[in-house]
Amino acid sequence: MFKGKIAIIGAGALGGFYGAKLFKNGHNVHFLLKSDYESVKKQGFKIISIHGDFEIQPPVYCSVSDIGKCDFIIISIKTTDNHNLPHLLKPIVGENSIILTLQNGLGNEEAIISALDAIDRNISKSRDIKQSPNAGKILGGTAFLCSNRKGHGVIHHTDYGQIRIADYSQKNSERIHRIAGIFNDSGIKCEVYDSVEKIRWEKLVWNIPFNGLGIAAGNADTSIIMNDNHLQDLARKLMDDVVTAAKSDGVDIPNEFAGKMINATKTMGAYKTSMQIDYEVKRPLEVEAIIGEPLKRAEKAGLNTPYLKTLYAIVKHLDIKNRT
Amino acid sequence: MFKGKIAIIGAGALGGFYGAKLFKNGHNVHFLLKSDYESVKKQGFKIISIHGDFEIQPPVYCSVSDIGKCDFIIISIKTTDNHNLPHLLKPIVGENSIILTLQNGLGNEEAIISALDAIDRNISKSRDIKQSPNAGKILGGTAFLCSNRKGHGVIHHTDYGQIRIADYSQKNSERIHRIAGIFNDSGIKCEVYDSVEKIRWEKLVWNIPFNGLGIAAGNADTSIIMNDNHLQDLARKLMDDVVTAAKSDGVDIPNEFAGKMINATKTMGAYKTSMQIDYEVKRPLEVEAIIGEPLKRAEKAGLNTPYLKTLYAIVKHLDIKNRT
Repeated sequence: MFKGKIAIIGAGALGGFYGAKLFKNGHNVHFLLKSDYESVKKQGFKIISIHGDFEIQPPVYCSVSDIGKCDFIIISIKTTDNHNLPHLLKPIVGENSIILTLQNGLGNEEAIISALDAIDRNISKSRDIKQSPNAGKILGGTAFLCSNRKGHGVIHHTDYGQIRIADYSQKNSERIHRIAGIFNDSGIKCEVYDSVEKIRWEKLVWNIPFNGLGIAAGNADTSIIMNDNHLQDLARKLMDDVVTAAKSDGVDIPNEFAGKMINATKTMGAYKTSMQIDYEVKRPLEVEAIIGEPLKRAEKAGLNTPYLKTLYAIVKHLDIKNRT
Repeated sequence: MFKGKIAIIGAGALGGFYGAKLFKNGHNVHFLLKSDYESVKKQGFKIISIHGDFEIQPPVYCSVSDIGKCDFIIISIKTTDNHNLPHLLKPIVGENSIILTLQNGLGNEEAIISALDAIDRNISKSRDIKQSPNAGKILGGTAFLCSNRKGHGVIHHTDYGQIRIADYSQKNSERIHRIAGIFNDSGIKCEVYDSVEKIRWEKLVWNIPFNGLGIAAGNADTSIIMNDNHLQDLARKLMDDVVTAAKSDGVDIPNEFAGKMINATKTMGAYKTSMQIDYEVKRPLEVEAIIGEPLKRAEKAGLNTPYLKTLYAIVKHLDIKNRT
């Protein structure tokens, strides 16, 4: 078994859940917390899961400087906090650290590399971030997890749980399979893919319409969208735009993929996206990572994605309005 | 001067204002009212206008059956009440009546013809509504008027006031100039155009983006939209879609028209559209007339108007949500 030191940077409903599964399996996991720090320090995490409830009392921190260098770092902060990455990573990243981002949307691998480049003064900033030596530290992943934070340190896991990961800078590396093994051994189904871009764009085919329309259509969950013919049609048009936009990263998504996503959503009942939950408690929405960056890449590549463009302008505006 | 009997069907902020100007000029004007009937019957209309305040005590009605046949009928009810047209028109339309709709959006001339066809049992319903003999009764117009109802029978006229009219079934008819004369003589600037479609689509170039985004962007007035770069850009994209959609009716709007509209809006300050005002008081929005019918015509003609399509789905949904 992997003997290294693991950090969970952002132990909310996602990071807390996966970290707890790893810790329960005997891994050396260290959790960075914000508002839940005091209570988790006293009472630990309580995981109420469809796969069985459990409690753990792991080492928790309110500052990364107390964690020290780690071998494997999982980034699960909100993308709206990515500006904190240099400060969060500096004390915990060593020469051989591997960093996996399980955050939403696009641009997180690049945000981490930029943060590392900013920390490391010996690195000359290159125009192409993929050429940075720090790119070699990065893995990207997407999580298919329904979980909610139900109170201080209490995480409610209601469905799914699998993750997909890929190495950012090399195909089929030895280490990506080693990391997948850590998850799979701990009861977290983890599949290895060749391309970070592919798994991110595939997830966006669903995430963009349902997160975005959930806000634009006035806090509408999946069943509200699916029960309105025009909104359902719009969700499909948005999916087609995402399939188009994915070409900007050389990612080919078959056209029938969108149709399958629509059909899958028909049977999933009323589901609230993370963006909706953030909106309700007036937290900043992950607009840039989930909608803005995909649109930016499409436009930079000269692709026409009008539905995506409309959604971005409206959701971005409603996000700011919601918090002022 | 025109000696005929005039009816104002829907004497709100628009119909009440124009009717009052005609009445003040000595015309024989009869006003149909709903909620303001009792108080206007007692106290008359009070017009607070940038062109000078005045009060009138005209004949008012709460039922069309008391009005009787009229020579000139101005329709200014909300388009969301168009289903009442057969009932409203039956007692007041005679063989030689002329009917002018000053309502918002598209499809009102056709709604009136359908209503007349439904009343007139001798008319065989033709597939093309333009071929109905009742089409000969119809004029269409657009009003550029900033006015608000500020209480029972109190109308606040804050800016503009001109109207554009065209004959629905004939170009440059004698009667369209006669009708324009009635308005112009009464201090209402009225311009005659060749085509109802042209004046309606030109108005929609502004009305669709600012009415629609006013709702989709969370009750945003014109200055809020213009001060958000992405929303302003979206307003322009919507205008371009309307210019495209207008081709479905054979209407050519020069591309620079949209740019002029954007520039004009930059200087007009914070203006709330009628759709926003309706939304705030939870009245049904004129979604179909202002957005739905233009989109329907574009799609029927095989034109691609993605921004318009997105706006329609969102605003239609928010309208229903707002009232349930």
